[in-house]
Amino acid sequence: MHGLCLKEPCAQEPPIGYPNAMSGYSVAILGATGAVGQEFLKLFEERSFPISNLKLLASERSAGKVAQFAGHEVPIEAVTAQAFEGCDLAFFSAGASRSKEFASAAMDAGSVVIDNSSAFRMDPAVPLVVPEINPLTVTESTKLIAVPNCTAIILTMALAPLKALGAIDRVIVSTYQSASGGGAAMMQQLLDETREALSDSAQSTVHNPLSKIPPYAFNLFSHNTPINEHGFNEEEWKVMQETRKILGMPDLKLNVTCIRVPVLRAHSESVTVEFKCPSPSVASIRKALSAAPGIKVVDDCSANRFPTPLEASGGDDVLVGRIRQDISNPNAICMFIAGDQLRKGAALDAVQIAELIVANRLAAVRS
Amino acid sequence: MHGLCLKEPCAQEPPIGYPNAMSGYSVAILGATGAVGQEFLKLFEERSFPISNLKLLASERSAGKVAQFAGHEVPIEAVTAQAFEGCDLAFFSAGASRSKEFASAAMDAGSVVIDNSSAFRMDPAVPLVVPEINPLTVTESTKLIAVPNCTAIILTMALAPLKALGAIDRVIVSTYQSASGGGAAMMQQLLDETREALSDSAQSTVHNPLSKIPPYAFNLFSHNTPINEHGFNEEEWKVMQETRKILGMPDLKLNVTCIRVPVLRAHSESVTVEFKCPSPSVASIRKALSAAPGIKVVDDCSANRFPTPLEASGGDDVLVGRIRQDISNPNAICMFIAGDQLRKGAALDAVQIAELIVANRLAAVRS
Repeated sequence: MHGLCLKEPCAQEPPIGYPNAMSGYSVAILGATGAVGQEFLKLFEERSFPISNLKLLASERSAGKVAQFAGHEVPIEAVTAQAFEGCDLAFFSAGASRSKEFASAAMDAGSVVIDNSSAFRMDPAVPLVVPEINPLTVTESTKLIAVPNCTAIILTMALAPLKALGAIDRVIVSTYQSASGGGAAMMQQLLDETREALSDSAQSTVHNPLSKIPPYAFNLFSHNTPINEHGFNEEEWKVMQETRKILGMPDLKLNVTCIRVPVLRAHSESVTVEFKCPSPSVASIRKALSAAPGIKVVDDCSANRFPTPLEASGGDDVLVGRIRQDISNPNAICMFIAGDQLRKGAALDAVQIAELIVANRLAAVRS
Repeated sequence: MHGLCLKEPCAQEPPIGYPNAMSGYSVAILGATGAVGQEFLKLFEERSFPISNLKLLASERSAGKVAQFAGHEVPIEAVTAQAFEGCDLAFFSAGASRSKEFASAAMDAGSVVIDNSSAFRMDPAVPLVVPEINPLTVTESTKLIAVPNCTAIILTMALAPLKALGAIDRVIVSTYQSASGGGAAMMQQLLDETREALSDSAQSTVHNPLSKIPPYAFNLFSHNTPINEHGFNEEEWKVMQETRKILGMPDLKLNVTCIRVPVLRAHSESVTVEFKCPSPSVASIRKALSAAPGIKVVDDCSANRFPTPLEASGGDDVLVGRIRQDISNPNAICMFIAGDQLRKGAALDAVQIAELIVANRLAAVRS
């Protein structure tokens, strides 16, 4: 097996009763050079994820490059169907078509696949997992787990704690999505176009007309995915479908507008939640959110301090603030949320799923 | 009288029957050095507003500077109660306290005051005017007219054409407001902080901790105005109150969330409109908006081309797109709008009001 063999796994103290012959898991990342792929590496280190062997896979184009991990240089290898041989866990983050192409091979080779793409999310046989919300959908026999859309993860993190307070009827969302949702290339495009706009004395935006998105410097635009027959773009449709599946509420009414803003890496969302009956009090909502794991309430009205994407960036928590009664509907409340798209919106959720699998296996070994 | 005396007024052909002794109006701008003040000068030129004499007023701090207008250098004078002597029209854009301080003096001196501040907007005796919507609230005897809040103007421009299609029950808005709403200083702060963030290799934001707003480079934040006892900030409260007054719908249910985004000069808004009955068809809404003056429908689903603040910037029209049935409510539709905050959101609306006054006077002279 190729990749980096870690004689001393990252976890200082490998868990006792580890089911694997090695002192950690053999892990592969498909899409290792992308923005989410790079975040996996940071999170493995930060969280001391027990890795015995790390294999970094990408397209032929990236093969031969190296990535840094735990003080080692790890070579990037071109992905093939054979590359997953010997892997315990395969993190996929290279787009839906790559996921469809390699998921079976990885599972056949014995890997559990944690897929960050949209390829399998709405497959009824595949759990769509936010570990704080629906961890029980992952069992010891689960071989393929889908990580939800970033906007859906951040939204459901803030909605799930409200379910216990009253029956939710309808949710209206307008998003403020960062460039990172379009990957490292879109983040670079935002930086490059902004730099050029600032260097132009007229502050007009220098923008490649062949770009698939509108000018991005000091601008925002409707999410650049195709519009369906209902007038919703693909991103909005994903968020609506996936939110229902994650929350286990197939009949939840949802209306989402997805907008990309010139922010680097955290998504924000303006959310109106309508209950079937008069809404719970703002105090009870604040209390439920404050007690929820993975949520940080940032709601200081006197200091005018509320969630911002910059504060959410690099952190694990989804920030929630501007919690208030909807003055136009006694059944509704409003809130404004922000979460790091690359972490909780993608890589962190996937690593938490892997931690869930590790915990499940430990529990199975101990029982 | 001080200021610039224009022997040949900007209007190439001064209207026949002009009620003023001169070949145009004697105009004063209070707040001439601000972002809106500068926009007045551009609009007077572009629209050939009939000016015989132009007086530029500002705080003591700006006195002695000069501004460019129609090829002339016009001195900036410190505002005093006597400064409005001989003025026909006084455009106020120096904040609510300045408006309160000088409105009576200007009216006593014979000026009609067109006030861009919030000072008199909710005074029942003062018309709050968007000329495309409620021009008849301005009569020949009106001496003081309030220009609405920028976000309210842009919103009402898109709502007013829908009133004829069905009874509107409730409107839910999330805004994407530009730096220009905070004046020239906030625009400069956005540019400066972005430039610094780009020059820092770590791309961390260099931000003055004494600033009244959060870091602005590649960031967004809840509007920086005080939060009231209902949990709404001052901007949101203004938009809700003023929208009802402009539309003449005192019972309209509204819920607005105001967010500042790192965009220079146009505001965008994600709008859900709930009717009392099943909503009009998307086709009928598109038709009504297309026919409305001051609105441009930008709604090309196949090319994924929708309103952006950059496209709205510098233009007169409010752009409307993403027009679709709200999939969560058969009575509701959604749209995304963008309008130049400095033009239709402020200076253009004021100049259109002045044009309305000129037209009213002409009509009075002719009748």
